[in-house]
Amino acid sequence: MSQKNASFKPDPNLDLVLERVIDVPPELVWKAWTEPEHLKKWFSPRPWMTTECEIDLRPGGSFKTVMRSPEGQDFPGHGCILEVVKNEKLVWTDALSGGYRPNGEPFMTAMLILEPSGKGTKYTAIAIHTSEDIRKKHEEMGFHSGWGTALDQLVEYAKSL
Amino acid sequence: MSQKNASFKPDPNLDLVLERVIDVPPELVWKAWTEPEHLKKWFSPRPWMTTECEIDLRPGGSFKTVMRSPEGQDFPGHGCILEVVKNEKLVWTDALSGGYRPNGEPFMTAMLILEPSGKGTKYTAIAIHTSEDIRKKHEEMGFHSGWGTALDQLVEYAKSL
Repeated sequence: MSQKNASFKPDPNLDLVLERVIDVPPELVWKAWTEPEHLKKWFSPRPWMTTECEIDLRPGGSFKTVMRSPEGQDFPGHGCILEVVKNEKLVWTDALSGGYRPNGEPFMTAMLILEPSGKGTKYTAIAIHTSEDIRKKHEEMGFHSGWGTALDQLVEYAKSL
Repeated sequence: MSQKNASFKPDPNLDLVLERVIDVPPELVWKAWTEPEHLKKWFSPRPWMTTECEIDLRPGGSFKTVMRSPEGQDFPGHGCILEVVKNEKLVWTDALSGGYRPNGEPFMTAMLILEPSGKGTKYTAIAIHTSEDIRKKHEEMGFHSGWGTALDQLVEYAKSL
């Protein structure tokens, strides 16, 4: 079984899922997600900004971002890339940092699955959590509107690529 | 750059390393490490025992063990396989469980590197930690003697395969 076919079944008690068909092809979504200069353009729901981004696109590589709040406060994140199947699947987690080093306070693993759909993409993003409490906290923080707005921004930006 | 050549540089403040040349070939070490019925025979330094083991040998797959103390207390562990390069490299972590789900209390990532050395193997096992405190705790728990004794047991058992 290839990695991309080893499908993950989200647990509704523990995980959050954003699924949508968008009218940009998988290749452009992949580009927007995996190249720092592109990711910075859409990753944070405005008026938040992504001011820095570093991606070492291989299992064990760093996935670093700095998100800046409207008040100017910086929130750095240092995660680890886990799986890379070009144009199809990207998995990273904040439970580890680069080189698979465990992080002190794990919050989630993010799994992105891209499937061709007509001229566009069936886009599935899954946030995988340790517990029901953390899932609820993420939901209350605004997972659906936040990730949805970021996806709107991705689509708008990807069309300019 | 292939995964196996993306070498990891241990940080002496954060990581612990066991390196030894052993007189069994990489193929047998791999077998002893990746097949549950074999792993159970050597994984816990006696008189501890490994009573259960489940390994789904792919990135994202479960790595489960139950270790039993001499007093009969069971210590279940549920980690996640991260990298699999047959006969060469195995990486798993307890910062995630199967399906890349973050674990509540991450302790370490274990990286095993096997290189042919004559008719034997240069065996390198690296325990990767979040902080100097956790590295020290692991050292005080007896990393070197524990992992060393388990490796003695592996060598003895692998020769019977």
